[in-house]
Amino acid sequence: MRVDVQTTNQSYQVLIEPGIITRAGEEIKKAAPASSYLIIVDENVATTYLSIFLASFEQEIPYYVVPSGEASKSFSQYESLLDYCLQIKLDRSSVILAFGGGVVGDLAGFVAGTYMRGIRFVQIPTTLLAHDSSVGGKVAINLADGKNMVGVFHQPELVLYDPNVLKTLPEKEWRSGFAEIVKMGFIADRAFFEWLHLEVTDLKAIKQETLIQFIAKAVQLKAAIVQQDEREDNVRALLNFGHTLGHAIEAELGYGAITHGEAIAIGMRFAIRLGNRILSHSIDGSSFEKWFETLGYSLNVPPELSATSLLTRMKVDKKASYQNFVMVLLDQVGQAKVYNVAVDDAMLVLKQELGES
Amino acid sequence: MRVDVQTTNQSYQVLIEPGIITRAGEEIKKAAPASSYLIIVDENVATTYLSIFLASFEQEIPYYVVPSGEASKSFSQYESLLDYCLQIKLDRSSVILAFGGGVVGDLAGFVAGTYMRGIRFVQIPTTLLAHDSSVGGKVAINLADGKNMVGVFHQPELVLYDPNVLKTLPEKEWRSGFAEIVKMGFIADRAFFEWLHLEVTDLKAIKQETLIQFIAKAVQLKAAIVQQDEREDNVRALLNFGHTLGHAIEAELGYGAITHGEAIAIGMRFAIRLGNRILSHSIDGSSFEKWFETLGYSLNVPPELSATSLLTRMKVDKKASYQNFVMVLLDQVGQAKVYNVAVDDAMLVLKQELGES
Ligand SMILES: NC(=O)c1ccc[n+]([C@@H]2O[C@H](COP(=O)([O-])OP(=O)(O)OC[C@H]3O[C@@H](n4cnc5c(N)ncnc54)[C@H](O)[C@@H]3O)[C@@H](O)[C@H]2O)c1
Ligand SMILES: NC(=O)c1ccc[n+]([C@@H]2O[C@H](COP(=O)([O-])OP(=O)(O)OC[C@H]3O[C@@H](n4cnc5c(N)ncnc54)[C@H](O)[C@@H]3O)[C@@H](O)[C@H]2O)c1
Ligand SMILES: [Zn+2]
Ligand SMILES: [Zn+2]
Repeated sequence: MRVDVQTTNQSYQVLIEPGIITRAGEEIKKAAPASSYLIIVDENVATTYLSIFLASFEQEIPYYVVPSGEASKSFSQYESLLDYCLQIKLDRSSVILAFGGGVVGDLAGFVAGTYMRGIRFVQIPTTLLAHDSSVGGKVAINLADGKNMVGVFHQPELVLYDPNVLKTLPEKEWRSGFAEIVKMGFIADRAFFEWLHLEVTDLKAIKQETLIQFIAKAVQLKAAIVQQDEREDNVRALLNFGHTLGHAIEAELGYGAITHGEAIAIGMRFAIRLGNRILSHSIDGSSFEKWFETLGYSLNVPPELSATSLLTRMKVDKKASYQNFVMVLLDQVGQAKVYNVAVDDAMLVLKQELGES
Repeated sequence: MRVDVQTTNQSYQVLIEPGIITRAGEEIKKAAPASSYLIIVDENVATTYLSIFLASFEQEIPYYVVPSGEASKSFSQYESLLDYCLQIKLDRSSVILAFGGGVVGDLAGFVAGTYMRGIRFVQIPTTLLAHDSSVGGKVAINLADGKNMVGVFHQPELVLYDPNVLKTLPEKEWRSGFAEIVKMGFIADRAFFEWLHLEVTDLKAIKQETLIQFIAKAVQLKAAIVQQDEREDNVRALLNFGHTLGHAIEAELGYGAITHGEAIAIGMRFAIRLGNRILSHSIDGSSFEKWFETLGYSLNVPPELSATSLLTRMKVDKKASYQNFVMVLLDQVGQAKVYNVAVDDAMLVLKQELGES
């Protein structure tokens, strides 16, 4: 399966194919020929897949192993990686290969986007969630007080997605990625949402065929949105459905305590409930909630968190300006819109979610 | 005096005008209206000019003082600044004001280019050398082992150049900036070179009129080159005349031991002499050398440096690929070209410069 992604200045392919990492070298040399490469790889991915990946190249390729987890999107990892690039003499014609989940994609992408003011890179996503980071060109690291606060837009030359690699993913990582897949249905494609609901009843037993199909579909839907609006002033904002509260939860719990997608799932339930309160129409959230609970999600806002702290974070989320508190809500399943939300309304619903009212 | 600079996606003005910092607020609000600003300012500049600059705004503007010197283009300054941006809640519609020399321009520009994946910025250059950094959109910080190795391309919204501010510059900083002005003549405009030679005989006694004129001319010439080639694959490389050896000298001495332009002046003499050795034509370098010595430049390669170490650095300069050792040489005064240089030839001339042969 192949999806073409068009960006302002170039276009690239997302190849979704079981076993593709066994011939990654070939594909990479075709799409991004270079005198030298550097693999930046997640430590868990390195253990299981690095040797297969390396074997697909004819020459030796240097690699740099990044500790697993969000904490790696730090200034110190960023600086160490850049030092390493220089040490092994990567030059402006070199290519960085990001082999891992969203963490490695974002970190390696930001290294590629800034080393010598930008060199090429290729993504080889190894998590389900990384279907999301492989389209859109956003790369970033975190500030101590703000996730993804520092970054650039930098498009990959190629994305190689091997569904076989996902087999070793822990279940919570399946949930993390699947929430973003479902989000695409929520904001952009009702039929897709309903097909997913029908097709996916157990995250441990997804048919390969189904998996490839929904990854491709989610990539296509995201690509369509991003193409309309590469710099996120407009429709791209819709991708933040579930993210305003989701990000706040991640930050309050400390990054890594909950997966991104699991936090976003909580944020989606909240956004639906808030929409039902403040908009003139209402959406049946309960079948979504039941489905997600069957899949193992916990949709309650973690009770140890305070509504006030969460709301403070939601207002300073970089997607909100400080004057207006904006959030993405659903007009219907398959269609989202940015709304101005009164802080009082958000507070009320949030307190209900927390059982505080 | 006003120069318009055209970039791929936008255009901006460089206003060169005595006293313009006293009404900077007004100009900035016109060209880059924003809900919030942050001034990033060099400590020496802050002492003398910050109050005047601040007074030109109606509201209070937060500022962040950066220690003077190249060492500030570091990861730790970069990270602290980004933390500060978040702390004072700069958002995507905020504007950063870079008030200082090239160091502050590069650092603040990289902060602006990456904070929230890029916000707007304005340059208020306070050194003669910064005429150079105010055009071209290159912003960067240094790795421990490589100058300007990490950065992006990020264009300012406006450049405000106040020649009055240059009065307090130490003499070596005049030499630093003036070398780059002369470089523009060398590579792109013989008449300009000759006019400079005639007009400037003492860096402490430049007429205001002359100063404004040559800043504007240098900015125009650089803008013309950059417009042809925004991403430095082609003619932009010519701007590196004098820089291959110059950068190596700066790095070997330790950043800050010699000013950028003084190192480039040494590099220009070397490039002329090397050209005279390996090209079929030859250029009269001696009148340039005498002129520059009168102006207080020391054109000898610092004798404590070794030819071998310098050459190693010259080969790994990011403007050179590792296979080919390229350098900008002059075909004549006013016209430069990129040449392949044999390491042996470069070594020979370098040893002569060092009196080692
Ligand atoms: N740039 C974007 O547009 C974008 C979009 C969405 C998310 N993100 C970012 O992505 C990050 C989250 O991505 P993620 O969920 O992939 O996290 P991740 O990269 O941390 O991976 C999750 C966990 O799975 C492990 N892992 C990865 N691949 C594996 C495999 N094949 N088998 C077994 N274990 C494996 C990792 O070691 C890690 O422990 C966040 O930092 C988020 O900000 C970016
Ligand atoms: N981005 C680009 O295209 C580009 C081009 C050329 C140079 N640069 C960078 O610029 C830097 C050098 O710039 P620079 O020479 O302006 O150095 P700088 O910013 O360090 O300034 C030189 C010295 O002058 C002081 N100073 C600044 N303004 C003053 C004033 N008005 N009066 C008195 N003192 C003043 C500073 O405190 C400093 O000590 C280097 O880091 C170089 O890499 C970038
Ligand atoms: Zn997300
Ligand atoms: Zn220079």
